[in-house]
Amino acid sequence: MQIHKNVLALSAITVFLSTATLVRSAVAGQAETQPEPFPAKLTSDLKRLQQAALASDYAYRQLAHLCNNIGPRLTGSLQAARAVEYVAAELRRLGLEVQLEKLMVPHWVRGVETGELTEFKGQAPRTSQKIVLTALGGSTATPPEGLLAEVVVVESFEQLRSAGRSAISGKIVLFNVKFDQRLASQGFAGDAYGQAVVYRGVGASEAAKLGAVASLVRSVGGAEYRLPHTGALRYADNAPRIPAAAVTAEDADLIAYLTAQGKVRMHLTLTPQTLPDEPSYNVIADLKGTEHPEQIVIVSGHLDSWDLGTGAIDDGAGVAVAMQVANLCKQLGLRPRRTIRVIAWMNEENGLVGGTTYAANHKAEIANHVAAIESDLGAGHPAGFSAHASSKALALLAALPPILQASGAGATRQSSNSEGADISPLDTAGVPTFAPIQDARTYFNYHHTAADTLDKIVPRELAENAAVVALLAYTIASLAEPLPR
Amino acid sequence: MQIHKNVLALSAITVFLSTATLVRSAVAGQAETQPEPFPAKLTSDLKRLQQAALASDYAYRQLAHLCNNIGPRLTGSLQAARAVEYVAAELRRLGLEVQLEKLMVPHWVRGVETGELTEFKGQAPRTSQKIVLTALGGSTATPPEGLLAEVVVVESFEQLRSAGRSAISGKIVLFNVKFDQRLASQGFAGDAYGQAVVYRGVGASEAAKLGAVASLVRSVGGAEYRLPHTGALRYADNAPRIPAAAVTAEDADLIAYLTAQGKVRMHLTLTPQTLPDEPSYNVIADLKGTEHPEQIVIVSGHLDSWDLGTGAIDDGAGVAVAMQVANLCKQLGLRPRRTIRVIAWMNEENGLVGGTTYAANHKAEIANHVAAIESDLGAGHPAGFSAHASSKALALLAALPPILQASGAGATRQSSNSEGADISPLDTAGVPTFAPIQDARTYFNYHHTAADTLDKIVPRELAENAAVVALLAYTIASLAEPLPR
Repeated sequence: MQIHKNVLALSAITVFLSTATLVRSAVAGQAETQPEPFPAKLTSDLKRLQQAALASDYAYRQLAHLCNNIGPRLTGSLQAARAVEYVAAELRRLGLEVQLEKLMVPHWVRGVETGELTEFKGQAPRTSQKIVLTALGGSTATPPEGLLAEVVVVESFEQLRSAGRSAISGKIVLFNVKFDQRLASQGFAGDAYGQAVVYRGVGASEAAKLGAVASLVRSVGGAEYRLPHTGALRYADNAPRIPAAAVTAEDADLIAYLTAQGKVRMHLTLTPQTLPDEPSYNVIADLKGTEHPEQIVIVSGHLDSWDLGTGAIDDGAGVAVAMQVANLCKQLGLRPRRTIRVIAWMNEENGLVGGTTYAANHKAEIANHVAAIESDLGAGHPAGFSAHASSKALALLAALPPILQASGAGATRQSSNSEGADISPLDTAGVPTFAPIQDARTYFNYHHTAADTLDKIVPRELAENAAVVALLAYTIASLAEPLPR
Repeated sequence: MQIHKNVLALSAITVFLSTATLVRSAVAGQAETQPEPFPAKLTSDLKRLQQAALASDYAYRQLAHLCNNIGPRLTGSLQAARAVEYVAAELRRLGLEVQLEKLMVPHWVRGVETGELTEFKGQAPRTSQKIVLTALGGSTATPPEGLLAEVVVVESFEQLRSAGRSAISGKIVLFNVKFDQRLASQGFAGDAYGQAVVYRGVGASEAAKLGAVASLVRSVGGAEYRLPHTGALRYADNAPRIPAAAVTAEDADLIAYLTAQGKVRMHLTLTPQTLPDEPSYNVIADLKGTEHPEQIVIVSGHLDSWDLGTGAIDDGAGVAVAMQVANLCKQLGLRPRRTIRVIAWMNEENGLVGGTTYAANHKAEIANHVAAIESDLGAGHPAGFSAHASSKALALLAALPPILQASGAGATRQSSNSEGADISPLDTAGVPTFAPIQDARTYFNYHHTAADTLDKIVPRELAENAAVVALLAYTIASLAEPLPR
């Protein structure tokens, strides 16, 4: 389906999240028997690493600095540039070899964003109802004085098309598709996200094809605190580029209630700007391997964030965890056979330029990329790790989960897609990809909102994530053989 | 303590909530034996009333209209005026005798409200950190271009005074006092509120006495979604009136983190206006009693709300429940001995003009006010009713809880203060006061925020509240004797 393809292209994370499934793998079967133990030295190093990770507040302090001293890190912003400098300097201070990989990234800047309902049944003369909303990343602007149009509510693309051009032309379309909070609470947050995010991604273009003048989407995420959730949209080439915003769940309910009673008109003002692309960087820092420095195990998170919050769960936490892997190895004097490469990716949120550029620049060395790990689903307690890797590769790692179980992280999940957006081009090129399995039941309550702030991180749980990623990376970098593909 | 007295005068609700306690009363003791049954006809009427209340969506539809078709109802606003008209018309339609009791009420209008940290350790050149905040009701304005000053964080009045004039003069003071979410979750939401709200009430004047140029308070309420909680403040006569706002819990944490590292300056802009007092009204509607029409049982909620949300839990729900009492009696053709008086109070939130004016205007008839009921703590599942009444009065009602138990509302609590802010002047004059005992564990997550919207109401639970209030009012209005004081 055309729409779905667009979303795939747009927001790789959707795909991973929505299709990740628990696969009863050969490894899971093996776990019921005794796994082949690691060499004693490796087991002992892993336990030291684990204890150090669980005892350390380094990751939390890094994250606090990124969120509080630097702040929101939207691609192209001064804060994003400052974050690149900070992470590079800190990794140099730890003694890693740091390179900055240059990218040209989008530079979109949020402006005024207001909405009011100016005509609806029962209103007092000269009153309006305020609508809480936020522009979607990449949205075009309304005229500076805003636009005024009737709002039409639809609950699916099918309903939009049934309504047809006569009903949609000249109108503001609201895609009122609920985020399935129950599904999310049951541990399928990614699936719940995947079901709803398609309307954020391509709703504007689908509405524009029928003549809509603006597009609204019910916020994709938790729905109890009148918080709008931003996120990227992707304009189709064959449709006018109309302004697009996310309204809160409460406001979507209000509009649906009022449109069911009669005509509702909205005054919508969005004044974001798309400025020329800016140079920015992936931060790449190597802890060189002793025997096979050319063989690479990536540990990563993305350094850019949306602009409403301070990017703690998405994804300062992932960067802080990756930095902690290097810090712990240095602190304990551990050097694995292969190179552990810390990457703080730029521009995951609105373009994936960092991930795609890295894969293109390192095409010749892809065969030496033994594994890529990314943490990009917050820092809730990790149940273990998830892998898009062969059963043979997982069999080699079978002695790891029993060690990880010391912090309740003994589960292994074999999935059928890349384990992170930034590492998806590597995954496509055949590199095994991994991620911690975070408790993400509340992740989408805060995701892409102003409430993505440091307090959402439980320091102990962040340390648990660092332990999982550190042990996984160190194991893969230390085994006698590289992971089979 | 002076401060505490000010708060008492300001925000009566604080007092009720913070001092309400479970008292093991004579009545509770009696409940373990068989209570004296009501006359058969009354018992049968109560059961009909209960079934009808639980089956009806009238209260929910009224509430939806108030929240969605009318919207925020801040005292003095056009929406508040429209709400008065609507409730009066609806109660007339039901066949009640409706009067509008004139009041002169404050007219305060929110303006621009922004905050940014412009100087703090680690910031990028030309960047700032946005602070999410909202003006407190009644606040004066900063200059239109805002003010720029260093922020000093204190955690108590004692700390403020220890810091002294030299540390406070020319600064913005942040009172960073946490709302005790655990206490609230354990069922003591009112106590948690009472502990923290004193800083909202009189913090500005206490800071101004030491030369502060503005005052910020950590939002009083739930703290996970970057929501600022507004509410009234009260300026002391002996201090300059400085601008005052509530910052979100997250922003309070951020400021505390940064001030611990060094100097932090904030650019604060608040442009609210205090306009001349406006005429407004209590809506008073009587369902006349058959035998003692001069004897009054009040059922009530307050019609005004804060301006950020649409006033569903605070307190559209209370008004809708009171309207439902009249609706149910009409629907079932029930007429009690005494008059049931529905009151939709105006100006609970920022002045209590409605409650005090009513008590003054009806001074001569206070002896005939048999009881006053107010619902003003949302519409969570009610466990029963709470009473500031004599044990003798409660003994007369002892057959009611077993009937209320049909909807899980069989508890009785005897408290030591008025059961509602608007009815507190009546309480002071000796009138027994009552309220449903709502489940308020999440009430203060939404209280005085933009998220106080219709979706926070569970229709079934609203109906359960209507059942409790209707049965309580109908019983008191139907007993052979008026409640003893």
